[in-house]
Amino acid sequence: MPQLGLLHGRAWTVFLGQLRRPPGAVCIRAVRSHSQGTRDLSPQQMVVREKILNVVVSCFKRHGAKGLDTPAFELKEILTEKYGEDSGLIYDLKDQGGELLSLRYDLTVPFARYLAMNKVKKMKRYHVGKVWRRESPTIVQGRYREFYQCDFDIAGQFDPMIPDAECLKIMCEILSELHLGDFLIKVNDRRILDGIFAVCGVPESKFHAICSSVDKLDKISWKDVRHEMVVKKGLAPEVADRIGDYVQCHGGISLVEQMFQDPRLSQNKQALEGLGDLKLLFEYLTVFGVAEKVSFDLSLARGLDYYTGVIYEAVLLQTPVHAEEEPLNVGSVAAGGRYDGLVGMFDPRGHKVPCVGLSIGVERIFSIVEQRMKTFGEKIRTTETQVFVATPQKNFLQERLKLIAELWDAGIKAELMYKNNPKLLPQLQYCENMGIPLVVIIGEQELKEGVIKLRSVPSREEVAIKRENLVAEVQKRLSES
Amino acid sequence: MPQLGLLHGRAWTVFLGQLRRPPGAVCIRAVRSHSQGTRDLSPQQMVVREKILNVVVSCFKRHGAKGLDTPAFELKEILTEKYGEDSGLIYDLKDQGGELLSLRYDLTVPFARYLAMNKVKKMKRYHVGKVWRRESPTIVQGRYREFYQCDFDIAGQFDPMIPDAECLKIMCEILSELHLGDFLIKVNDRRILDGIFAVCGVPESKFHAICSSVDKLDKISWKDVRHEMVVKKGLAPEVADRIGDYVQCHGGISLVEQMFQDPRLSQNKQALEGLGDLKLLFEYLTVFGVAEKVSFDLSLARGLDYYTGVIYEAVLLQTPVHAEEEPLNVGSVAAGGRYDGLVGMFDPRGHKVPCVGLSIGVERIFSIVEQRMKTFGEKIRTTETQVFVATPQKNFLQERLKLIAELWDAGIKAELMYKNNPKLLPQLQYCENMGIPLVVIIGEQELKEGVIKLRSVPSREEVAIKRENLVAEVQKRLSES
Repeated sequence: MPQLGLLHGRAWTVFLGQLRRPPGAVCIRAVRSHSQGTRDLSPQQMVVREKILNVVVSCFKRHGAKGLDTPAFELKEILTEKYGEDSGLIYDLKDQGGELLSLRYDLTVPFARYLAMNKVKKMKRYHVGKVWRRESPTIVQGRYREFYQCDFDIAGQFDPMIPDAECLKIMCEILSELHLGDFLIKVNDRRILDGIFAVCGVPESKFHAICSSVDKLDKISWKDVRHEMVVKKGLAPEVADRIGDYVQCHGGISLVEQMFQDPRLSQNKQALEGLGDLKLLFEYLTVFGVAEKVSFDLSLARGLDYYTGVIYEAVLLQTPVHAEEEPLNVGSVAAGGRYDGLVGMFDPRGHKVPCVGLSIGVERIFSIVEQRMKTFGEKIRTTETQVFVATPQKNFLQERLKLIAELWDAGIKAELMYKNNPKLLPQLQYCENMGIPLVVIIGEQELKEGVIKLRSVPSREEVAIKRENLVAEVQKRLSES
Repeated sequence: MPQLGLLHGRAWTVFLGQLRRPPGAVCIRAVRSHSQGTRDLSPQQMVVREKILNVVVSCFKRHGAKGLDTPAFELKEILTEKYGEDSGLIYDLKDQGGELLSLRYDLTVPFARYLAMNKVKKMKRYHVGKVWRRESPTIVQGRYREFYQCDFDIAGQFDPMIPDAECLKIMCEILSELHLGDFLIKVNDRRILDGIFAVCGVPESKFHAICSSVDKLDKISWKDVRHEMVVKKGLAPEVADRIGDYVQCHGGISLVEQMFQDPRLSQNKQALEGLGDLKLLFEYLTVFGVAEKVSFDLSLARGLDYYTGVIYEAVLLQTPVHAEEEPLNVGSVAAGGRYDGLVGMFDPRGHKVPCVGLSIGVERIFSIVEQRMKTFGEKIRTTETQVFVATPQKNFLQERLKLIAELWDAGIKAELMYKNNPKLLPQLQYCENMGIPLVVIIGEQELKEGVIKLRSVPSREEVAIKRENLVAEVQKRLSES
């Protein structure tokens, strides 16, 4: 497959700008797979996804957010220099004449572009949509090249930390409602990190690179991060060690107070601003009743370039087997932060619109919920069909079609077998398999008497009802169940 | 902009296979637009879209369909040779190493690929998702390069025309429920068209090309189509004239009977099969009570390569100003047909799975509904907020935060102003503007008395209720309204 890709790739360059297929290019008819790192969602998976998205979107609406949709691709320039070291993961479209386009990498940059383009100064919006990243083809559990993001953002100039606290409250509400078990939200502030880098002696030109290294602390040890800082990024070992003293700290509101007293950090204006905001944030989180879910974690860095203030990330905790062990971090499921400069990058005059937001990592949540359902052997109904129209005799297709049309026209979810003369048993078996609760049966006897039989699938009880009462009777039964 | 696009394009080829930006490439910071032929959906538009999609998806579920999702892009080979003359409109992704990918052009080909790949022999599924086509950049009303499709398909070997009739019934249900005015569904059959071409003397190698010409009859006159057939596609003029005699016919079930008697067409086996199926289809549509919405139209061809049997297309009719005029066709809003060979193209052994389905053209419907709402000046609520938490005094932020957290935790949709000390009037004005029905007010007086004020926005009436009864009282009010 890769060879073929290369062959095509080279051939295309010869025919630059043309739309025809190069002569002799191989055409495969029997390919049966989809592209690497992507997947189809089966009906079972779609049901799980729908349930999770419902919880997420309901919460966003509960907090007064409006919906917004943006195109799957943006002008390439829009995405340039927004994502730091990860920019290489952006999918570009082929130049087929016209504009250079890229698939969106997240929903935040398109939102900022929308605000700037429409000169919107204030907006609370949510957006559920797919994004695309050319991650390494080996798929770690729940990591794909195409995945859903569910974003909630508040744009506008407001009093400090009120929208930020709401974002954290939303993360708590969603994670609680989804029953994912215990979780923790790590918070930090880019200004505190920059302050740490400054007082530790990192040259300003290396802030971004060192920030990227710190970001890896949830995946690799401090020893390895330190090695990267010193060997790859050319930091003096003693500077790295000073950083290490800070970024290995985490705690609650008391750690904020402690950092205020830190002899070096308290000399840095930026760090003090960040600490002041975090203090206020913890105050509001206490009022919201969620402060105990939040931890000030100096190692939290977040990879993206555009954050300017508070940043946060929610991780699920696995209750340890032994009481003395620390809870295990089983991965990030939500994250976000403040990005006050991004909108200004799209405005010709650089007018800024401060923003703060969050993104729910639903793919990760899908796989956790899916796994849980498998473990507990939960059966999922993949259709919502309420009634099945059946017959025990031949030559009843027209009668069945007449009956089912009546049900559909009354808004009742109904199915029948696409056969002229089906046998009764497979019809009833289908209902059992699919969890359809009611069967309407029409046969010679019923036709003669002007009735139909109504059968309850779970109890197997059957009653005859008048033909003309069909819809009313079915609706009554369904409302009772 | 196009110049820049070309510059980038050329520069890329020099750096083939590399991910770095070519040195000296221009970087624009102040770009503010999205790509041609795409659009953002504003909150107002999102509300309209949500309502329309709800109607469509509810109908699909009413007919027992399961959900399915496929990736936005497929391997390029999957899409090759499926779309006839329109294949040039497929968006390709850039070769960044690895596979050659294309954005999906419709939802039908990915569905067929899914069935073949998973060896599924029977499935009723719906799929709502975006598709992408590089249409000419001039945007005709409601025509975009990125748009939603809503598809319903039935795969499997069943008795003839029962699933096909259900597809037409579904189209009728959706178009009626959306109140789009009068509509008509044109039906034809690819085998009848092929039969016509055969008996008129079209060489078999030209069937596809001539079919594409016939497909244009809803946009250009027979004279122009005939010209294309003769001049561009090299058909003998008398052959074109014979085709013209057929494809200008349309009517109901009686036209089917008439074609059965046609001396030339009745000699063609394929045509007879198609006519037999259409006869049966009309029988079932009569039972469903929708036959009068359906017209046998010999000019209907449908552009796509993969149809093999019955094809159909729903058009909206505009009631003419003068009674003697024919209703005006204001464009296609739904279409589909039978494609029995497509799944087999993806199966290594060529195993076929017969399919029939339909696609709702929701973009067109969006713009019609939007236009109608503008005409009637309908106001759309873009949020669902039920309660606003307000204060008339300073220093009540903490109290407001406490109150709103209680409401959120009880599942009530609530907002507040992100200000430490907002004035009361703008808070109440916001509620009026946004259509929020209830306001919870807390001030010094209320705090002292252990109450809060509940204000109805429409009536402006206020009552004091006990602080601890807040949630219960709000829920009661909301359930009554």
